[in-house]
Amino acid sequence: MTTDNPKELYLDDLHVGQRFSSGTYRVSEDRMKAFAAEFDPQPFHLDAEAAQHSVFNGLAASGWYTAAVSMGLIVRGPLRLANGLIGLGVEAEWPTPTRAGDSLRVESEVIEITPSRSKPDRAVVKVRSTTLNQDNKPVEIAVAKLLVFRKP
Amino acid sequence: MTTDNPKELYLDDLHVGQRFSSGTYRVSEDRMKAFAAEFDPQPFHLDAEAAQHSVFNGLAASGWYTAAVSMGLIVRGPLRLANGLIGLGVEAEWPTPTRAGDSLRVESEVIEITPSRSKPDRAVVKVRSTTLNQDNKPVEIAVAKLLVFRKP
Repeated sequence: MTTDNPKELYLDDLHVGQRFSSGTYRVSEDRMKAFAAEFDPQPFHLDAEAAQHSVFNGLAASGWYTAAVSMGLIVRGPLRLANGLIGLGVEAEWPTPTRAGDSLRVESEVIEITPSRSKPDRAVVKVRSTTLNQDNKPVEIAVAKLLVFRKP
Repeated sequence: MTTDNPKELYLDDLHVGQRFSSGTYRVSEDRMKAFAAEFDPQPFHLDAEAAQHSVFNGLAASGWYTAAVSMGLIVRGPLRLANGLIGLGVEAEWPTPTRAGDSLRVESEVIEITPSRSKPDRAVVKVRSTTLNQDNKPVEIAVAKLLVFRKP
């Protein structure tokens, strides 16, 4: 089920298997390089010529840029938690490089809900978010642990 | 051992237990909010008043901003791999919020080296990087899997 409802969600509104689809974001080469210049200044993220001779075989975004863009898509998408998207931790991998001009979107799925034993008003919810490019290749697979509250 | 040598490192230069200390970075409120506005536009990352009533008890950086700043410190620090810092994946957690004005630094340690069975010129190297604030509290603990090459 894809939830397109923009209402704010509480723990009671979530179930394992629930899915959320984000909008799309087009990666601009300028923005991708500006991010790399600030946070990940390596030649294969900044210089197309140098990147040709790297393991990426061409200019590639920083994995952290892919992660940040993915977060932006999720926050602006339908997985709208009433208390916000509060990440306790994440496991991420980048199977395919993000390239300038890519159109990215994120498909998220609730994969585990673990109620807190000590605090009955909350749970840790694992959400797997796959960021796909226009060829449906995964540029990021991230499993986040989110802190989610019950409706007061 | 802290490596302060800026020379470029190959797989053969790395060993389990090897440590690297980054420089420091002072978090500006403006930059932290600009990142949040672009990639993680949630009230507790953007609005001090709203953040007071959130689980963060005050304005907090996006975890992805902490991750990006940490990457910047690592790339500009002594863990300088000849082929670049190529991350296959990462596990990260954010035990303490990053606040405006924090001075962050990263302590990294090689914790595992797994040579490739099929490609003898490379290995996957696990590096645990702890980002600490000025009170030595960890704002991020990240274990990255890096692709590292032998000297040709």
